[in-house]
Amino acid sequence: MGANGMSNSAQIGVTGLAVMGRNLARNFARNGYTVALHNRTASRTHELVEQFGDEGDFIATETAKEFVAALERPRRLMVMVKAGEPTDAVIQEFAPLLEPGDMIIDGGNAHFADTRRRERELREQGIHFVGTGISGGEEGALHGPSIMPGGSQESYGSLGPMLEKISAKAEDGAPCVTHVGPDGAGHFVKMVHNGIEYADMQLIGEAYQLLRDVAGYSPARIAEIFRTWNTGRLDSYLIEITAEVLAHVDEATGEPFVDVVQDRAEQKGTGRWTVQIALDLGVPVSGIAEAVFARSLSGHAGLREASRGLAGPRATPLGESEAAAFADRVEQALYASKIVSYTQGFHEIAAGGEEYGWDIDLGAVASIWRGGCIIRAAFLDRIRAAYDARPDLPSLLSDETFAQEIAAAQDDWRAVLAAAVHQGVPTPGFAAALAYYDALRAERLPAALTQAQRDYFGAHTYRRTDREGSFHTLWGGDRSQVEA
Amino acid sequence: MGANGMSNSAQIGVTGLAVMGRNLARNFARNGYTVALHNRTASRTHELVEQFGDEGDFIATETAKEFVAALERPRRLMVMVKAGEPTDAVIQEFAPLLEPGDMIIDGGNAHFADTRRRERELREQGIHFVGTGISGGEEGALHGPSIMPGGSQESYGSLGPMLEKISAKAEDGAPCVTHVGPDGAGHFVKMVHNGIEYADMQLIGEAYQLLRDVAGYSPARIAEIFRTWNTGRLDSYLIEITAEVLAHVDEATGEPFVDVVQDRAEQKGTGRWTVQIALDLGVPVSGIAEAVFARSLSGHAGLREASRGLAGPRATPLGESEAAAFADRVEQALYASKIVSYTQGFHEIAAGGEEYGWDIDLGAVASIWRGGCIIRAAFLDRIRAAYDARPDLPSLLSDETFAQEIAAAQDDWRAVLAAAVHQGVPTPGFAAALAYYDALRAERLPAALTQAQRDYFGAHTYRRTDREGSFHTLWGGDRSQVEA
Repeated sequence: MGANGMSNSAQIGVTGLAVMGRNLARNFARNGYTVALHNRTASRTHELVEQFGDEGDFIATETAKEFVAALERPRRLMVMVKAGEPTDAVIQEFAPLLEPGDMIIDGGNAHFADTRRRERELREQGIHFVGTGISGGEEGALHGPSIMPGGSQESYGSLGPMLEKISAKAEDGAPCVTHVGPDGAGHFVKMVHNGIEYADMQLIGEAYQLLRDVAGYSPARIAEIFRTWNTGRLDSYLIEITAEVLAHVDEATGEPFVDVVQDRAEQKGTGRWTVQIALDLGVPVSGIAEAVFARSLSGHAGLREASRGLAGPRATPLGESEAAAFADRVEQALYASKIVSYTQGFHEIAAGGEEYGWDIDLGAVASIWRGGCIIRAAFLDRIRAAYDARPDLPSLLSDETFAQEIAAAQDDWRAVLAAAVHQGVPTPGFAAALAYYDALRAERLPAALTQAQRDYFGAHTYRRTDREGSFHTLWGGDRSQVEA
Repeated sequence: MGANGMSNSAQIGVTGLAVMGRNLARNFARNGYTVALHNRTASRTHELVEQFGDEGDFIATETAKEFVAALERPRRLMVMVKAGEPTDAVIQEFAPLLEPGDMIIDGGNAHFADTRRRERELREQGIHFVGTGISGGEEGALHGPSIMPGGSQESYGSLGPMLEKISAKAEDGAPCVTHVGPDGAGHFVKMVHNGIEYADMQLIGEAYQLLRDVAGYSPARIAEIFRTWNTGRLDSYLIEITAEVLAHVDEATGEPFVDVVQDRAEQKGTGRWTVQIALDLGVPVSGIAEAVFARSLSGHAGLREASRGLAGPRATPLGESEAAAFADRVEQALYASKIVSYTQGFHEIAAGGEEYGWDIDLGAVASIWRGGCIIRAAFLDRIRAAYDARPDLPSLLSDETFAQEIAAAQDDWRAVLAAAVHQGVPTPGFAAALAYYDALRAERLPAALTQAQRDYFGAHTYRRTDREGSFHTLWGGDRSQVEA
């Protein structure tokens, strides 16, 4: 099984054999590809072959040269190391050993700006750099993830069929992979995927808290409600596992599991990036931002401790009959807020695509999220249909079906939010979503006052509703208007 | 008035004589300092002397060498050019002409990270780089701005007395300048100042919209209400100019001025930076974020046009007697939301200070914002008092007076927000502020569910409420718990 005996025969090589790299390598092998393996510490390479060698054809290599020599041409070299400097180090190690036409595939969670830089640098050498978002965690990597490759069209011609084979399949059998667009497009879309995931989780958390505090339900009962919701339009992986988590009982204490878990949510960074980049692009992603902030806030233990005594209502649980009706309303509020989150996320993808010239097919993006990834949901099939029917849809809210659903949901949405406000249950995600919806549909916004204030204190000028041009009012003088 | 005749006699030099630089130079001269002047285009230098030469002692110079030669030692050289590359270009031009102990003062709106880099680079040459936030616009620059210098303690010893002289003075006579902290501290604090300014303006906009749509008041009547508010605890420059703007009638149409201004609010970047840096620091600044997003949203004309038909209530104005009571409630909601905005902003300053080792005196920051700058307000005197009384205050909400005020305000705050929600008036700022308040005081947050979900799909582990350690549940197996 040495490299010498099997030169040039591997269709793909994977370097970096931590859990994600290992499982992707196995996935390729299980699908009939010969996979060259490489890891900085060679023992991990040999372990993989020892444990899983019977799953397919692996070529274990120990040096960079051996690894590269094991690959058929054009070479497909997949890098599964940590984002940032480790990725640059691996590229620097391998690039000199490659030839024009070869491909380096970065399957880590790189920032798309890094991917753009790396793609540009390697393109000068004729090497295709394929920044690729991969979602689905360990299990997805092994059994079929959702895959979001960027890079050149040419590289996708060679790589695409392999990715399609190892990817998740949607219910209609379509592989959950598409060529998202050039250079950093794949990692950009993966970033927004994660931002939407943050928002989805926050909204679910708020729904749970309302069912707990306002409806007065136990976690077990709420688990049942989520199970029911999972048979309807909210059908999704995250709703499904919410039910599993809420139904789980802690063995040590006999308490509901969710009650023994510390209420501090951690984060790794892609949610934060999604908001930071949206700010650069001028795209309002308030729902995603509130989700990121909610995680940060939960971790400020000292601040929370110091704030527990602040005045405010304690929620009074509803009676049994009202509670059931309230739970139905929460489903409406959750669903409407979810539509807004996805509207914001897809707006960011469209804006990123425009900014960087990527020409992203939004329907295809929705399509490849239908399987394999954390936000997989029946809902995405309908987003796909909306964009397929009208690729120039100004926003998801412009889709007739979604607009009708949100119209039907909104009385309940408003009632739930008002209840939360009165009873002191924090619902930043629901609130941000509704404020966004009401702002978008507003005939006039107080932005006119804001712009007038800016003209007052900073001579920043304003436009008029009734004629073209920029104007400034001489606020410190006779308050006449001048063209500016 | 040539440089030769007055060598080494200027206490300060200003290069970059656009409106801010020009007015600062005049301010120094009016306060008795001899000011060397320099501008890339010399004509502007001479114009300044021609127009304002009788205000004090100016030395017009044409070349970089002449300019530097005109300054007494250690030289104080103030750069008033655009942030970014122009600032670097000016530094590269002048630094070689300077000597150890000299000071370059950057009074532009630099990103604090650039300021940190420049300070580090110039420190190697023994030159003090003093990144300085200056707030107050053109008028402030001339008559007295709020000044936020960073840089070394040594530079402040030389520069501080001059800045104190030209700065605004608070009502108690204290100059609105303090040595904020080393390197980028000044520009950091100026950035957050602007973020808070965004939030203040957004909250005022929401209050205005509620008075318009829910109370049913005209702009002129709302101007009266703001004038009244300006005599109470909301007394501030922004409330004052809001009344002025709302009372203004458009000459061309006879309509309220605010109604002829396009409702698209622009922005320059410091608000966005405030949110982006807060995300890096893990500080929830949801109120500032909503203010930035509200401006972006207002500018998406196509999206708004496409969304105008979305279903939702139109506000029904209250009757006269109810309207007055509602207006009082809006004041409570505005004030409570404002306390939250400042809580978030000061949290960011504290976190930035900790991250970069700046040891910022939060009371002093509040103190120097009391005059000269856009957010100057009576309110800041109370923030100063809160931090002076307890410099280790976990947050502004921990101050007893603020906590009591917010306790008294909250029924109205909740009622106003619920009314906005039911009537379809977008109030993202009020909503974010209340959600933050309720989240901080919550006994338990749904972050426990979020973290459990993360453990479910990504093996990210969790902590328990009842014992130390990290744990993982074998969700895919028998669901037993393992130490992780």
